[in-house]
Amino acid sequence: MVVGEFVQNRQLIIVGGGPGGYIAAIRAAQLGLEVTLIEKEDLGGVCLNTGCIPSKALTHAAAQYASMPHLKEMGIQTEATRFEWSSFIEYQKKIVTGLQKGVEALFKANKIEVIKGTATFMSENRIGVDSGHHYEMYQYENALVATGARPVMPSGISRAEEKIIYAEELRNLNGVPGHLVVCGSDYIAIETAMAFRNLGADVSLICSDDTFGLDESIARELQRVYKKAKIKLFKNAELLEAEAGGEAVTITLQSVKEKITLDADVMVFTDNYQPNTNELGLEFIKVHLDDEGYIVVNEYGETSVPGVYAAGDCTIGMRLASKAIKQGKVAAEHIGGLSSAYSLALVPQVIHSTPPIATVGWTEKEAKEQGFEVKTGQFAMGGNGFASLSGQREGLAKMVIDAKTDLLLGVHMMGAGAAEMISTGTLALEMAARDEDLSYPVYAHPSLSETWLEAVEQATGKAIHLPPAHRKETATS
Amino acid sequence: MVVGEFVQNRQLIIVGGGPGGYIAAIRAAQLGLEVTLIEKEDLGGVCLNTGCIPSKALTHAAAQYASMPHLKEMGIQTEATRFEWSSFIEYQKKIVTGLQKGVEALFKANKIEVIKGTATFMSENRIGVDSGHHYEMYQYENALVATGARPVMPSGISRAEEKIIYAEELRNLNGVPGHLVVCGSDYIAIETAMAFRNLGADVSLICSDDTFGLDESIARELQRVYKKAKIKLFKNAELLEAEAGGEAVTITLQSVKEKITLDADVMVFTDNYQPNTNELGLEFIKVHLDDEGYIVVNEYGETSVPGVYAAGDCTIGMRLASKAIKQGKVAAEHIGGLSSAYSLALVPQVIHSTPPIATVGWTEKEAKEQGFEVKTGQFAMGGNGFASLSGQREGLAKMVIDAKTDLLLGVHMMGAGAAEMISTGTLALEMAARDEDLSYPVYAHPSLSETWLEAVEQATGKAIHLPPAHRKETATS
Repeated sequence: MVVGEFVQNRQLIIVGGGPGGYIAAIRAAQLGLEVTLIEKEDLGGVCLNTGCIPSKALTHAAAQYASMPHLKEMGIQTEATRFEWSSFIEYQKKIVTGLQKGVEALFKANKIEVIKGTATFMSENRIGVDSGHHYEMYQYENALVATGARPVMPSGISRAEEKIIYAEELRNLNGVPGHLVVCGSDYIAIETAMAFRNLGADVSLICSDDTFGLDESIARELQRVYKKAKIKLFKNAELLEAEAGGEAVTITLQSVKEKITLDADVMVFTDNYQPNTNELGLEFIKVHLDDEGYIVVNEYGETSVPGVYAAGDCTIGMRLASKAIKQGKVAAEHIGGLSSAYSLALVPQVIHSTPPIATVGWTEKEAKEQGFEVKTGQFAMGGNGFASLSGQREGLAKMVIDAKTDLLLGVHMMGAGAAEMISTGTLALEMAARDEDLSYPVYAHPSLSETWLEAVEQATGKAIHLPPAHRKETATS
Repeated sequence: MVVGEFVQNRQLIIVGGGPGGYIAAIRAAQLGLEVTLIEKEDLGGVCLNTGCIPSKALTHAAAQYASMPHLKEMGIQTEATRFEWSSFIEYQKKIVTGLQKGVEALFKANKIEVIKGTATFMSENRIGVDSGHHYEMYQYENALVATGARPVMPSGISRAEEKIIYAEELRNLNGVPGHLVVCGSDYIAIETAMAFRNLGADVSLICSDDTFGLDESIARELQRVYKKAKIKLFKNAELLEAEAGGEAVTITLQSVKEKITLDADVMVFTDNYQPNTNELGLEFIKVHLDDEGYIVVNEYGETSVPGVYAAGDCTIGMRLASKAIKQGKVAAEHIGGLSSAYSLALVPQVIHSTPPIATVGWTEKEAKEQGFEVKTGQFAMGGNGFASLSGQREGLAKMVIDAKTDLLLGVHMMGAGAAEMISTGTLALEMAARDEDLSYPVYAHPSLSETWLEAVEQATGKAIHLPPAHRKETATS
């Protein structure tokens, strides 16, 4: 290994090229900072390379495959319809490569230096980078840590190639498994279960709670959808053992009533993570971590050490690319001298299941726990004209409203268009909208968004497309 | 014919069961009014039976058919793919029948009286209804006219069965025409042209302007899409003649440069309408009409005659079901004693072309004409991750912003998700959002809605996924 003789000076060093890091790099460059980004693998991080992007290609393709009977009903006649996993994997790779090239081009255009290597904080303002054959030392004015998190197996379970795996490894499978067991309670579990069911796998889902963190009305609808789709759901269940042997995986779980054994082809774990903060030398610069190793940051993305920022999955709080992006931007702006700050109070969550789920703000239960007198309005997709004509009648929209002030507290939806419409909910909450702010505007007709209008109207007994018995006020406290 | 002996009393009589009328009827019933609705054809009017609903079934099916190569690319293998027009027509009928039954059930549940017949105002507070074999006279406290509009041929052109037709008659065709000529400049023309192109027809589009009433950036993108799709566009063109003979239609038009003759299988007219107000006896009660026969109404839906309201296509202003719905609701509420009013300043328009187009508020040109110093932000769908992975890279999002106050003035989009996302724009305009109200929130990732964030950021030179040269401020006055 060649060790550099001099300590080189850099203005801003970013460790990690995932969405938090790469977007911070671009924003900082926009503000005139000289930016160096250190990444040991590919630009784009887990999100672009093995997480969000490939998984959404999967959920999209799987949903389209599941819609083939609807297409046939509409006159689109096909024969010998089948899903070719290998073609899909090629497609997925092409998408990822295309987006990677896009990020690389943006880095070039923004004159951002990229160093391939492993970074370690050495002492105040110093980072060492091991590039395999080279070792260089850099002195920074500011640093941003965006190293992400990695999945870990639950204690007592061993990873087994193509048998007991993490969600990111699904793309390494040789085909759609005959029986897939998904173990997790997060959005990845929900997406994975439905995607593989859409592709024809038998799917069992083991989760530790029974709401997936969703509003109860949505959780109930999801369970109905699972039942209809023949996804076997073990809720409030505890995984006891998983063992790979020969061609199969044997899984033992404790359900509410009994101990159950499942034989599966593949078992995938989704929601057990650990931050990538333990081999970074953060202890040398005394960055404050929480008990689980996540970096503690404030609303500017600042850590406990002046000049050192952090963004994304390696920081405290939710694990979502959207959080990383926001934190990265704000950190870059703060370093660049702007007065930006972020709040994670209103982060929309989108789950690309079939139908999709999207939610922002408080669930009914959370709002009540916060002491609000809550009224709710709900409308089923089945009553929406556009949902009917496009064969997407599953799901519902639900509004959680403060009965005293009429302020919107939460919007929850399962149904076609949810992923696109949720921004309306975020904006409404952000701007402190009242129910009349959603019921006053004109809605395009026919449109999926009319479900929101009817849900808001239902809260005050005025939904048009509900019979009188179902549109009564539902104010409860 | 049996003529009733007595004049019967009714509280509210609604003439016309389209979206304006039927929704007014339900809202009025919710408010405790006794409602009688007179309809000479099917409940749901043009919108449900021959307009919005069947046409959106068509645009949806056609878009899905056009996406088959994308599905194949993702691994969904099919053989012998073809579009069976007759199966589609069956599907379309099934959807319409299902929704009709829904409206009928709602009427029953809301105890709304429906009389099948043709209504004529006789004198103040009196309506006569001819039901074919019966003739009855009713006295009303309030009346709502929602009789819609009907297409008419341009002067000098004669309708010819299955040859020279209106858009509503497309569903009567025996199949997808070889060459379809669309003549019109409205959303129906845009939808019809792309739907039939998606289904394999050769399509020519004759329109009298070159922007279709859209923002210029969207209009330019639409022309690019047409060129790519091989839709022959004759813009700023004037139709001179159309004649059906044998199996074909011969069309002569004056384009910008020359006189052109086209041979087509079918010619469809989309945007020449006339209100259904001339055989209603409105002259007997002296309802004020404009020069073209449209009923003049105020922001409560009131006509010039106390107690008589009107809603929908028979009234002045735009011709959209969403307007009819809003007017119908407000009129019913006003009759019911509420202080409701409506504004048509912010009506979103959605065009179900491929890709879809949606727009709300002022175009850049309109905003400038209003005297604003305008800054705009624009972002192409091709730069959006979700658009890439779902094979929907065509289009763009554009924000029109007041450069002095940062208030949003208009949102314009062509691209996947536009129909669902436009509600965010309507709410933003309604609540007087500034650009930072759209750039501050966290956006789900990856999502189509991130195009809006980048468009807003582009207006201030901060779009992440645009190279420096393309993200400069575009403030112009």
